[in-house]
Amino acid sequence: MLCYNTYFSKHFVNKNLGTDEMKKTVLVYGHLDVQPADKMTDPFELVEKDGKLFGRGSTDDKGPVIAWIHAISVLKKKGVDIPVNLKFVFECMEESGSEGLEEALRKHKDDFLKNVDMTCISDNYWLGKKKPCLTYGLRGLCYYFVEVSCAKQDLHSGSYGGTLPEAMNDLVWILSQLTDLDGTIRVPHIYDLVEPLTDGERKIYEGIEFDHEEYKKDIAAHSLLKSTKEELLMSRWRYPSLSIHGIEGAFSQPGAKTVIPNKVIGKFSIRIVPNMTPKSVDKLVIAYLNDLWAKRGSPNHYNAVAHHGGMPWVTDIKHLNFRAGARAMKRVFGVEPDYTREGGTIPICITFQELTGNNVMLLPIGACDDMAHSQNEKLDRSNFIQGTKTLAAYLLELAE
Amino acid sequence: MLCYNTYFSKHFVNKNLGTDEMKKTVLVYGHLDVQPADKMTDPFELVEKDGKLFGRGSTDDKGPVIAWIHAISVLKKKGVDIPVNLKFVFECMEESGSEGLEEALRKHKDDFLKNVDMTCISDNYWLGKKKPCLTYGLRGLCYYFVEVSCAKQDLHSGSYGGTLPEAMNDLVWILSQLTDLDGTIRVPHIYDLVEPLTDGERKIYEGIEFDHEEYKKDIAAHSLLKSTKEELLMSRWRYPSLSIHGIEGAFSQPGAKTVIPNKVIGKFSIRIVPNMTPKSVDKLVIAYLNDLWAKRGSPNHYNAVAHHGGMPWVTDIKHLNFRAGARAMKRVFGVEPDYTREGGTIPICITFQELTGNNVMLLPIGACDDMAHSQNEKLDRSNFIQGTKTLAAYLLELAE
Repeated sequence: MLCYNTYFSKHFVNKNLGTDEMKKTVLVYGHLDVQPADKMTDPFELVEKDGKLFGRGSTDDKGPVIAWIHAISVLKKKGVDIPVNLKFVFECMEESGSEGLEEALRKHKDDFLKNVDMTCISDNYWLGKKKPCLTYGLRGLCYYFVEVSCAKQDLHSGSYGGTLPEAMNDLVWILSQLTDLDGTIRVPHIYDLVEPLTDGERKIYEGIEFDHEEYKKDIAAHSLLKSTKEELLMSRWRYPSLSIHGIEGAFSQPGAKTVIPNKVIGKFSIRIVPNMTPKSVDKLVIAYLNDLWAKRGSPNHYNAVAHHGGMPWVTDIKHLNFRAGARAMKRVFGVEPDYTREGGTIPICITFQELTGNNVMLLPIGACDDMAHSQNEKLDRSNFIQGTKTLAAYLLELAE
Repeated sequence: MLCYNTYFSKHFVNKNLGTDEMKKTVLVYGHLDVQPADKMTDPFELVEKDGKLFGRGSTDDKGPVIAWIHAISVLKKKGVDIPVNLKFVFECMEESGSEGLEEALRKHKDDFLKNVDMTCISDNYWLGKKKPCLTYGLRGLCYYFVEVSCAKQDLHSGSYGGTLPEAMNDLVWILSQLTDLDGTIRVPHIYDLVEPLTDGERKIYEGIEFDHEEYKKDIAAHSLLKSTKEELLMSRWRYPSLSIHGIEGAFSQPGAKTVIPNKVIGKFSIRIVPNMTPKSVDKLVIAYLNDLWAKRGSPNHYNAVAHHGGMPWVTDIKHLNFRAGARAMKRVFGVEPDYTREGGTIPICITFQELTGNNVMLLPIGACDDMAHSQNEKLDRSNFIQGTKTLAAYLLELAE
């Protein structure tokens, strides 16, 4: 077990559950740290109400870690032979970007991580509230800063308005050229990088249980960009999207201020998907921004930079790892799970895949309305119990 | 004298300097409050260094008020008959928007303000550092909020990017349609409201001492919108200008955040000039914004409002008030003053003009580099002495 924390990074315990060379070895990951819990009532005391277990970390990610412990305890107590060896990575810095974890894992690539045949991570959520799923893909990210400056300091529009070309005018124009109204990214050739959709993949989307209208209602969106379930989920998971996050350096407070900001930094990012890489996307995006700037013809100063990037991740759902996960869910829930992807990033997936050289599966036990990171985080009691059963069943199914 | 402060608004002292009905009556305005003085060294102890008097309020506006007191003391000490009656309005809330002053003045329109023949305000600055000026015009202001919303709360671009039309995209597009690169405001018919330039007015601009290149260097602008002195000053003082100040509700901090802001409010304002009024400008601007929104065709929610407005002010420089001011400056400095306008607003000018029904003149004694409101505010010793002499001379010249 590697119980990881920046402050105790030297306390590496190379103790595993089983070292049978005849058995496969499964790595289990979880984290024990949580998001800040301001505004919650007794966030650190678990309270059960109406079948829901309220408490900070109940679903993200202490609950799933406890489910693992319960699952293994029960199997051991009942004298059931666990058909795989287990290794654990439980960290306490996940909510702070898993600071230092990759470095620590990399150090133990050839001892602790050696012979890991597959990894199972229970740190995401079902797509809905009723049907279990296994998650096989995540989008990556490319984040950009576009800076425009027009003077050495902020100016008062009363004293200077009308005398110089203002940085904000240039910046909002550039930002206005990034997408069409329907969300299409205008960067030339960016869609050429996207892996073509196969018939088999389309079929996965057709089978997924997802309510288009409920999704719209949940976020009170005035409209959605796609009109069918399949298109919407693909737009969320397997196609890139661009969002403008904001502007640094301009007036952003409530009320009115008559400032001419001298230097403004527009921030936007693109969620990327296979076969896009930060490198290939950065090249196209920076070239497009430079072209826009040339077209603008402004005498102001401009600079566009790729701030940071992360790879997308997709894995093979035909691997034993997923087959065992699916059979376990079938045993517990009586249904085949949906195969889902997510629109965000969980960088640790890529780290485990790279360092073990083997399959990684996301097996969520919480539901989509668990409010991780938000007030009143919960895990339904039924999800906790059925999730525990699923994890135990998953270990047994790995005997296949 | 009306020594005004919100907290002592009842202490109205109706004591004037002279009540000779054969004489004209001059109202003198000044203020005794100052901007906060963080970061300065001993801001409230006047320090003379290299011919400069450093201290908070030295130029804005305690220095000019003391210059008035000195000017009058000297005349009285020397037994010189002051050829006008004087009334004073010294307030202590100017830096807080002169809260309550207009209301108090309005109450005394028919007693204290009765028979005021002209008003002299020394609360602005020379255009440059060497030549005195008299100021006869100010721009007004129309401030707008444009709000776009796409969901009920901020969303994470990982979970939601690609599924809904985002408010920021609509807002930056609208903001990008407000001006051309050369600063021209795109609102249809807005320039029809601007008073045409006369030959006489153009001549005033030709005579003004102003260094176009020094102005550019002072603010380190990469470029200016106009290439001649006259055009630049007119663009600053007698034509409208539009500035985009910022966006409320979007990410504005340093660093990166992958938020989809659910509700964003773009803020911009137009500096207005005669014969524009907030009412006439608001009508054109809101109609243009509504047209833009219709053209955009976004399903998101939109609202545009005129947040607040203030009238521009221009007065007659042929009035006795200005003639006396100009002769006073000629006596003290040996040159005719420049006649200047300013790009910002000083609402009290319009208040005095309206309530007295008579001429208002801005007679600055500080220079353009006095750094009012900023660190190390100063008033040159020579400006203070010559300014005091100018004020005394002005009173004597009013005997004309």
